[in-house]
Order: sequence, then C-alpha cells, then structure tokens
Amino acid sequence: MQEFEVIKIREEQAVLFASIDNPPINLLGPGLVRDLVSLIRILDQGDKYKVVVFSSANPNYFIPHVDVTKIAEYRAIAAELVGEPSLSLLYRRLSETKAVTIAQIAGRVRGAGSEFVLACDMRFASKEKAIFGQLEAAFGQVPGSGGVQHLTRLMGRGRAFEVITSSTDYSADLAERYGWINRAMPDAELDVFVSDLARRIARFPHQGLIDIKQRINAIALASAEDYRIDSDLFGKATQNPETKARYKSILEKGFQLDGKTELNLGEALGEL
Amino acid sequence: MQEFEVIKIREEQAVLFASIDNPPINLLGPGLVRDLVSLIRILDQGDKYKVVVFSSANPNYFIPHVDVTKIAEYRAIAAELVGEPSLSLLYRRLSETKAVTIAQIAGRVRGAGSEFVLACDMRFASKEKAIFGQLEAAFGQVPGSGGVQHLTRLMGRGRAFEVITSSTDYSADLAERYGWINRAMPDAELDVFVSDLARRIARFPHQGLIDIKQRINAIALASAEDYRIDSDLFGKATQNPETKARYKSILEKGFQLDGKTELNLGEALGEL
Amino acid sequence: MQEFEVIKIREEQAVLFASIDNPPINLLGPGLVRDLVSLIRILDQGDKYKVVVFSSANPNYFIPHVDVTKIAEYRAIAAELVGEPSLSLLYRRLSETKAVTIAQIAGRVRGAGSEFVLACDMRFASKEKAIFGQLEAAFGQVPGSGGVQHLTRLMGRGRAFEVITSSTDYSADLAERYGWINRAMPDAELDVFVSDLARRIARFPHQGLIDIKQRINAIALASAEDYRIDSDLFGKATQNPETKARYKSILEKGFQLDGKTELNLGEALGEL
Repeated sequence: MQEFEVIKIREEQAVLFASIDNPPINLLGPGLVRDLVSLIRILDQGDKYKVVVFSSANPNYFIPHVDVTKIAEYRAIAAELVGEPSLSLLYRRLSETKAVTIAQIAGRVRGAGSEFVLACDMRFASKEKAIFGQLEAAFGQVPGSGGVQHLTRLMGRGRAFEVITSSTDYSADLAERYGWINRAMPDAELDVFVSDLARRIARFPHQGLIDIKQRINAIALASAEDYRIDSDLFGKATQNPETKARYKSILEKGFQLDGKTELNLGEALGEL
Repeated sequence: MQEFEVIKIREEQAVLFASIDNPPINLLGPGLVRDLVSLIRILDQGDKYKVVVFSSANPNYFIPHVDVTKIAEYRAIAAELVGEPSLSLLYRRLSETKAVTIAQIAGRVRGAGSEFVLACDMRFASKEKAIFGQLEAAFGQVPGSGGVQHLTRLMGRGRAFEVITSSTDYSADLAERYGWINRAMPDAELDVFVSDLARRIARFPHQGLIDIKQRINAIALASAEDYRIDSDLFGKATQNPETKARYKSILEKGFQLDGKTELNLGEALGEL
Repeated sequence: MQEFEVIKIREEQAVLFASIDNPPINLLGPGLVRDLVSLIRILDQGDKYKVVVFSSANPNYFIPHVDVTKIAEYRAIAAELVGEPSLSLLYRRLSETKAVTIAQIAGRVRGAGSEFVLACDMRFASKEKAIFGQLEAAFGQVPGSGGVQHLTRLMGRGRAFEVITSSTDYSADLAERYGWINRAMPDAELDVFVSDLARRIARFPHQGLIDIKQRINAIALASAEDYRIDSDLFGKATQNPETKARYKSILEKGFQLDGKTELNLGEALGEL
C-alpha cells in the first residue's frame, strides 16, 4: 500500500486500522484530506478491504476541528476526488465507499471532527476520553459538512437543535443517549470491542456488505444537494464581520493550539 | 413590549422568558392562542429576540389540553395569523419562527399541550413534576396539531404507536428514553440549566441560528399539508356520536377542572 | 373463528391473543405463513378485532428465522394474499392491517423473526429471555423482509449499520437502548403489562385507531417498492456460491435444530 502522510495504516487481512496522527492536535488540514482522498480511492476499488477502523494517535484529540487557516487549501485537495472544493462532499463520498467504516473515538471530536465520525458507518467512544461538540453556531455558522443532516436524522429535531445551537461539549454517555454514537464504553474495553467487531464483519461476504451499505444509505444518507446547501451557508457566513471577529477572538485565546482553550472549547465558546 | 393576556413575559436582553399563567389549570383557549399570535408576530421580525423559554406558572399543569368548550373561538383567533382556523398550523408557524424556542416543562402536558411543547425546538422536563400524554385515541381521534408528525419522527414507529394509541400518562424519565423530550432532570436543576442554555445560545450571532433552524426544519418539520390532514381527521371525529359521548362522560367526571380526573387523566381515560 | 395451523388463538372481546406454536423451534414456514394470511384477512375486515398480541408458546424461540428448506413453498402461500411470492410484502401488509399489533417477545427473534416483530406496531420484550439478531450479512445477504427499512428508521444509520452488518445477538436491554423494541421489562411483568395495554387500547373507538395507524404508517412505513428491492437482493444472493456454502456449513452445525447452534447463533455465525 502507498504511503500516507498523517494516517498510520495497519493492515490485517480485510481490515484496515487507520490511526490519525497529525501533531500537535490532529487538526483536519491538507495532509489528512490528501490521505482521505487516497484511502477512498483504494476502498472504492472494493476488492481488498471490507472494514476500516479510524482511531487517533493522540489521546486528547481525535479531530478537534478543521485548521481554519487552511480551508482553501484542503478544499482544493478534496476537489481532486469529488470535483468540487468541498469537504462536505468528500465526507459524503466516504459514507458511500465500499468498505464498512468504524470510528473508534477517544479524545475530542468537534465541528468537522464530529462530522467526520458522523460520516463513518458506526461510532464507538471511550466513556472517559471522548468529547463531542458541534461548534459552528458559536461563530454564526451552520455545520457545513453533514452535521445538520446526520444529527437531525440520528437524534431527532429537539436534540439536534440543542446540540447544534448550544455549540457546547457533550460527554460520551450523553452522546450515546442522544444517538450521536452507537455506544459509549469503558476506555479499557473499547479497542478490543471495536477490533473484534471489525474482524467479525470482515469474515462475511463482501457483496452483501456492499448491498447493505447501499440500502441503508438510500434511506439515511442525505442528498449531495442538501450537503451543498449546508456547505454554502457555512462558507457564506465566513465572510460576515461578526463571524470573522469571533474567529479572531478565539484564535487569540489559543484556538488551534494544544492547551486549555482547545481542551475546554465548549466553555471558551460560551465566553466569547 | 405589548401586554399579554395569559403569558407573563420577562425580558433579559435577547432572551424572553414566557410563563403561561391561565388559571385554574392552564387550558389552551382563546387567551393563550391570542398571546401566541402576538408573540409569533414579534419573533418573526427577527431583530430583537433570539431565544424564548416557555414555562408554566402552575406547578401541576403546563398545558393539560385545549379548552374543549372553546375550539371554534381559539381557532378563529389562530386564523388571524395563519389564514386558516387551525391550531395545527399555528403550532407549525411557531416551529418556523426566527427565535429558538425552549420548553421548560413541569406539570402536565397532554393532547395539544404535548403538541405545543413538540412545536418548540427543544424540551427539558422536571423528573418529579412533568407528566406527558397524547390522549386523543381515547376519544376516537388522531392527534390533530402535529403530535403524529413529531412523535413518529422523534421516537420511531413502534414507540409512537404505543404513546398515541395508549392515551396514557408517561413520566419524564420514560419520555426521555423515548425521545419525546431532550432530557429529564431533577426539578431543582431544571430552571438553572434551561436559563443558562438560553443565555448561552443568545450570545451567538442571530443569522447563524436562523439558518440552523431553517436547515433542521427542512429535514424534520412536516409539511403544512400533513398538518392539515391530521387536523381535518381530528375535526371530523369530533362529530362522531361515540367521540361526543366520551367527551360528555369525561366532562361529567371533572375533565377541565382542577382535581383528580385531570391530575390522573391517563387512568381516568382507561376507565371511560 | 376458523382453525389455525400453528397459531393458537384466544379471543377476549376485541383482543386476539395469538401464540405461535410450531415445534420444535418455531421456524417460519408454510404453516405460519398460511395462518398469517388467514389472520390478516380476518383483521382487514376491521369489524371485530382492534388489537392482536403475538407471543410464542416456546420459551426459547419466538421465531428464530425462516425454514430455509421451504422458502419457495411459503412464498407461494404469501402470494395468495399479496399477489407476489414475497414474505416481505406479506409483512408490509401486516403492518397495514386494521388492528393494532403488539409483539410480546420472549425467546429468539432473528432474521425474518426480527422482521416479523418489526412489522408489528409495537414490541415489548423479556429482559431475561428475549434475544435479537439480524443475521443475513453473515450469509452475504441483505435483510429481505423489511429489516433494513425498519431498523434504519428506528435506530438511525449508525446503529442500523452495526446491527445489520454484525449479524450478532443483542440482549433485550441493548435492543431497547437502540430502539429495536419499545421496552425491555422483567419477564415476570411482561405478560400483565402487554395484556393490560392491549385491553386498554381495545376500549377506544376503532375508527380513531385505524386513522392513527394510517397516519403513522404514512410517515414510517417504507414503500412496497423499497420492500421489493430488499427482497430481490436477498433472493438474488441465495444463488451465490459463497452464500450457498455458508448455509451448507451452518446446517451441518445444527442450524434449524433445537440445540446450541440455534441457541447461540450469533456466536456460531462469527465462526463460519
């Protein structure tokens, strides 16, 4: 298999274990998007890998959010695969690839990090270490990469409203109760559970898994057009003076750096 | 701000705290509908209030149901805003207004009371004091003001069938497990939690909240036509001799009055 | 009432208690399908029975899955009612009949057994005795009789993916958390709870229940065309050499017989 930039790959028969390792805090930027483009191309061939498990090499951060200084750059890379400069459509494409994808979550997933795990087919999280947030409302934005689409369908109108408008942090236990994830489990059990599940699924005939994926997505995956509308609203809002001012303010407080603002971002956003 | 008839308003910057106070038992009648029409008109302007918190001044009743002796009257008032004599469409209009709406529930919400809180964007309830019921089936009716639409989407086919056909009372804990509400919490914590959440959301840019609301509703809010069909079925059933007889019978047992029939209405409906 | 072959019927005013009794392990075969066809014809008349409660006479098995040696035979019987040799459309027809249907589940429901209880309007299960599985993926197949349609809508994309691709066993508690069933309850309470609920609903006017059912199904019941697509994929896969080999292998291990393979089928499928 080819080299990846920030994803560490371990192959075990038909299962790929993909650990995201992008110091210091696993921001989603050009490196990770380039790797996702490469990985989706491999998975789309459908002849070798049945299951992919995404995890993080950083115990505090899975994907905390995008690198807001490199949006144009990573979007351009996404366009190589999906034909449009859109992280949103790249995520949707991941949801449609021929492998079953599992997110094994410890650390923070917020914003486009949350949307990444939502684009996976399943989500299991560490009770002690996983933290969830959909933080765009704090900046005056709509979640632009599938967050509205997935969360509204997974948890219903009321809980999606709360999670998205509050822009605050949610524990793994509450994320489970709300349907954000499949299950929260003790950190000590998470890796064995997910690995066993991945190996189990990988023993089953591939065409059946592909058919199942196609049929579930036919019901539960929003249209590309819906993704585009959200993405355009997100992009348009980045030009608002109030949105710009809020990004400037949070960057001055340590946004994008390892430290207490990123660790407790829900709290920090409430004080902007 | 103008005077309201049965809603007590407290303004705190961009948050409106709206307490329903319509003695003796907070029935939904002409007064409350007139106030809702006025309030929606204010919120629709979108220039001042970002969040509204609805609560009840009566610890036993939030909105127990409509005043069945004044249906024509309150429908006529609703028509002033929505162009049709329909509580159903008034509720749908509330779900579309420019403010984020939160129901802080203690006491009973049944029938159109349940449908009122379902029309809000979020619902938090007192573990000790909130009681939920969708009681129309006991009278031979379909919930006519959004109950079928919201409950089926929030809790799925099986639980919606149970809740709607049983016409019985549900605790806040079970309402949470079923997805009827966002969360049940200890009564002592409810007010602080909801107020803090409202204030937090009200710090965020308004246009983003409006966009989020529009995008969630595009997925989760049923069409006006679906509301009309339910409402028409409800209205048509009121003419059935069996439905009339059941209303007559429950009225003779203390329906609409403060007392044990209203307090334990689920039980009383099972004995009709 | 006419004689049934494998369903034992007890009539109590407007409630039918229907106990499935098809030794040795309650496989779904020609007898049960013939009885379902007869029962749906009776219920469709809509003049006598308001509620049906399905339970099992066998404490270990509710419906473990279809009799894989008699697929053509039971499909032909289904065609007598639905015009196509399709268990899938028979189940969908059950979901649309004029009675409210409740599954009272103890023992195993897997594959088309799970899909049978999903076709019912509500599901209550014994915490100690009920076991759930959607096992088609282990054979390289899509659940063909509504499993994909119901599970994706009831539990959302992530949990539906897990349940369907894992082909493993789920406890009643986890089935409740995932929305597969309404509620798990102690075995000692299940029968009284379900019987009381059935009797309560049966006291309410029938036309209202019929209207409610029609309105909930308009939202939550998938189209016949969607059922057909799943069913066709299931059927097509039965011709794959890999699928055939896996059925042969599990049959050699005691599939369809009372014993440890059927009791622990989730485990056995992981070792195929």
